[in-house]
Formats: sequence, C-alpha cells, structure tokens
Amino acid sequence: MADVAIAVHGGTAKRSPRREAEAGQVRAAIATAVAAGHDLLAAGRPALEAVEAAVVLLEDDGLFNAGRGSLLTDEGAIEMDASIADGETQRSGAVAAVRGVRNPVRAARAVLDDDEHALLVGEGAVRLARASGLELRPEWWFVTADHQAGWLENAEAGLTADEGQLGTVGAVALDARGNLAAATSTGGRPGQRPGRVGDSALIGAGTWARNATAAVSCTGDGELIIAGALAHEVDALMRHRQLGLREACDQALTAGLGALGGSGGLIAVDAEANLAVAFNSELMSRGWKLGGGPIETAVGGNERNG
Amino acid sequence: MADVAIAVHGGTAKRSPRREAEAGQVRAAIATAVAAGHDLLAAGRPALEAVEAAVVLLEDDGLFNAGRGSLLTDEGAIEMDASIADGETQRSGAVAAVRGVRNPVRAARAVLDDDEHALLVGEGAVRLARASGLELRPEWWFVTADHQAGWLENAEAGLTADEGQLGTVGAVALDARGNLAAATSTGGRPGQRPGRVGDSALIGAGTWARNATAAVSCTGDGELIIAGALAHEVDALMRHRQLGLREACDQALTAGLGALGGSGGLIAVDAEANLAVAFNSELMSRGWKLGGGPIETAVGGNERNG
Repeated sequence: MADVAIAVHGGTAKRSPRREAEAGQVRAAIATAVAAGHDLLAAGRPALEAVEAAVVLLEDDGLFNAGRGSLLTDEGAIEMDASIADGETQRSGAVAAVRGVRNPVRAARAVLDDDEHALLVGEGAVRLARASGLELRPEWWFVTADHQAGWLENAEAGLTADEGQLGTVGAVALDARGNLAAATSTGGRPGQRPGRVGDSALIGAGTWARNATAAVSCTGDGELIIAGALAHEVDALMRHRQLGLREACDQALTAGLGALGGSGGLIAVDAEANLAVAFNSELMSRGWKLGGGPIETAVGGNERNG
Repeated sequence: MADVAIAVHGGTAKRSPRREAEAGQVRAAIATAVAAGHDLLAAGRPALEAVEAAVVLLEDDGLFNAGRGSLLTDEGAIEMDASIADGETQRSGAVAAVRGVRNPVRAARAVLDDDEHALLVGEGAVRLARASGLELRPEWWFVTADHQAGWLENAEAGLTADEGQLGTVGAVALDARGNLAAATSTGGRPGQRPGRVGDSALIGAGTWARNATAAVSCTGDGELIIAGALAHEVDALMRHRQLGLREACDQALTAGLGALGGSGGLIAVDAEANLAVAFNSELMSRGWKLGGGPIETAVGGNERNG
C-alpha cells in the first residue's frame, strides 16, 4: 500500500498563560483526531472520510472554536461554518452561518454528496443537514462553561471577546489510492456580527484540494485569508511556478496573508505524501502521521514533519 | 488624465428565439450601464463607485437575473448574492442569500465600507443594509411578469426552471488614478435550494480585483466557477506566469471552468487599460468603453475591444 498521510490543526493563537495551561489537552485531542483519521486511511478508506472523521472529533471536543466550543456572536449566538473538498474531482461542499448542527463538517459533506450546490447558508443548510439525518443540538449544548463566562464578562464590560484564540480546526489527508482531501470548521470570529462568514466556508480561501497539487486547510484572520485567496494561492504556486509543497505554502502565507497584515497559518499535504505547515502567528496547534510513522504534535516553534 | 476603462456584462446564455428577441433591449441596458460608470470615471471618481453604479442600473432593470428580475428559488422566493472588490487595497465586501434589498451590490459595498467583515449572509446582511440606509423592497417588487409566468409553469409541470439564461451581471473598471475594481450581482440559479450561494458572492471565484493584475467578474455555472477559483486563477496566471490579460483570461476559462465541464465567461480589465472577455457559452452579453472611444456592445461572437 502506498504511503498515506494526515495532518490536523486546531488553529493559531497568541502565547498566553491560558494557552500554555491547555497545551497538553489540545495536543492530546489533536493526536486522537490524527489517529482516527489515520485508522481510516490505513484501512483503505478515502481521504474525504478521514478528514471528516478527524474534524468531527475536534468539533465535539469543546476545546476548539468549532462545533461544541464555538465562539459566540455579538448577540450571544452560535453560528458555524465548515467546508470539505475532494482533490480527485475538485468537488466540494460547504455550509455557513448554520445553527444547531452538531457537526458542521458533516453538513458540508452532505452538501458535497447532494451534488447540486457548493455552499448552503443558514436555515437552508440546516434543512439539508436534517434531511440527511444529521444530529441537531439545542444552542446551549454548544456553549462551554468557559465561553459562557467569557461572553458574560465581555458583555458587562462592553467589550468584544478577543483572547487571541482563533481555534478553527482543519484536516488534510492523502489516501492509499493517491487522492487528497481537506476540511475546515469554525465557530467564527469572537463577537462577530450575525451572518458573518469567514474563510473556513470558502473553497479557495480556507480550504482547497486538487490531486495534482495539494490539499490545504487554513486558519487565522478570515477576512484577509479571503482577500489573499490563500488556499488557492498554494495550488497556483505549485502549478504555475512548479514550487514544491513547502515552498508554495511559505510563499503563499507571506504573499497571500502576511503582506496584507494578516496573521494565521495553514497545513497541507501533496500526493507524494509530503506534509507542510506554515504560520506567522505565535502558536499553531497541529499534529500529523505519515505512513507507519509515529503520531506527532506541536503547538509552537517551527517543528515540521520530516 | 490617464485612460479610464469600463466593461459590463449581463451574463451568459444559450441561443434561443427569446434571447434573439430581447438582444436589442439587453444591449441598450448594458450600454446605459457602461455610460453611467464611464461618466463617473471621466469625472475622476473611483473605479469602485463606477462598478457599483453600473451594476445598480442592471439590478434595477428587470431584464437580468439580479436585483429586480432575479430568478426564484424552488420555493418561489428571491435570494440574491453580490460582491465588490477594490484592487487598490484588495479589500472586498459581499452579501449572500439576502432578501428584500433593492440593490445587493450596494449592500456588498456597505460590507466593504463597514471594514469588519468580508461576507455577510441572510438576515445579518439585510440588517447591515438597513442600518446603512439602503432601500428595501417587498418580495413581489423583484418578481417580473416573465418570472411569475415561468415559475408557475414549472411548478405545475414539476420542473425546475432552466431556460439556459444565467443572466448574472457584473462590471470591471479602471479609474484615472490607476485603481481597479470589480463587482458582480446575481439572483442565483433557477430553482435553487434556499440558502444556496454561488460564485457571485465569493471573492476569488466570481469576483476579484488587484491593481497589479486585473479586475475580474465572472458568470456561468457557479458551483464549477467556485471549484476552479476562476477569478483568482486569472490573477495567478498574470502574477506567476507573466501572462497578459487576454491570455490569462482565456487560459483561466479553459483550465478553471472548461476542464471541469462548466459553461460561463468573464470580463476583465488591467491597469494598462486592456479589456478582455472570454466565454465558452454560446452568448455572453457585454459592453465596454475605453477612454474616449465609443460605447460598444455585443452578445454573441468573439468581438472584443481593440
């Protein structure tokens, strides 16, 4: 069997005592997601399934800004975005501004499988999720004790929450048949306006997959990732400049996000089982497993997979 | 004063007796929109203002699938998408799945000016439009007699409306200061599911502007334009392969849409006042004016501006 590979991220962040304190938990959750995705790949399952399974675990965890644990809008609501992309066909599915869907990445997958639309938003997306048999949850289920406290504190102080934690999650994978896939899921920006959609729902911005180049999942300043078409820029640099995966990721991050004043990062995998991470924030939590190698995780520094 | 330039499109379509019959009206409406945008450019106003003004006229006209005249969802509702992009700053604004906003492109501009988000959907977008003093209209105002008849006919026959008319509108412009801008607006796909968002609201897919490369507005099979990141592909070909505007548009259309089995087209302008159109559909209605030259319009063929 050809080498399979998977990488998972839990978003970028600034250094803080809180980030330090939870780093162990974050790495453990990411390792679990990597393992779940890798098990599927090792069993010969498609990359699309592996990235979905990895993201579902992070959405359910509560530690990340996606699914349960999603940040609150300025009105105290939970609105989530997610997307998933298939590198073999370039087909994709995405949902944005959805409420009450336990696993937005599964709703994105339902849009992909429905094979009619690429992006559904709001109640229309929730309806498709329901029709696809996906689990719905009441709004309070998504709100962790931490977020409750944070939102009340900010509401009283008249502040918009911003603790430098973006916490979007994502995964990229290569399966045994040589197909790539990527998925991204987020609870949005702290204190965002209702109806705001960031890069995580947008193919070419936060998510991209094409077998001939790479599968990419981004995180960070969503509006600037959109302005730089960050995920598609990785693909464009590989196709038009023949850059390798890592150089393409580094250059895309610099030109497609850093030059616009944005902070963030991305993970990527290509069909030769190369993995890459690039970020210009202080921290980016991530984990990966390449073929029969160990599961590795990192939060700061510039550790990459060999 | 440096040469200013503007191009406007009214979407792609298949040949049909109905298209033939309305071609004169379509060309007249497009010429009016070109003139309005050009008047602003000639007066030294920004490209951003010119593309907005041109698109507003097409949204109000009733002949196009944008604003008044928008196609109906499968439930008989009107949901509209629009985006606008500033080539000087790479900032953009977009709205999707909005109801009741007379001019979605103005709502997209309000998102841009608000300078906080890049894409707002649904009721959140309508709220910003209202807060920005934009005009709202009851739903029936958007529905022309033609669309009423077409929808009822299809509803009775159990069909999804599809007369090969996509009819999205868009504009690209270069102003006297050398800044580029692009805008796109649509009523969506005939019979689309509520909440469906296509390429017209998505920066990098249906709309793009960067002074160093081009301003681009696309139209056609929205899901496939998203899959090919069509507008950003024009930009990538110019930056990474040093292609000229026309070659970049042709190659992007072939690789970014045609290769995926998609039908559609795009208009573009660069900072040297080159204009380009590329489409693989039978018809694409468009018009343009370059500097002190005449207003020209075309619907079929391969007429381009010299």
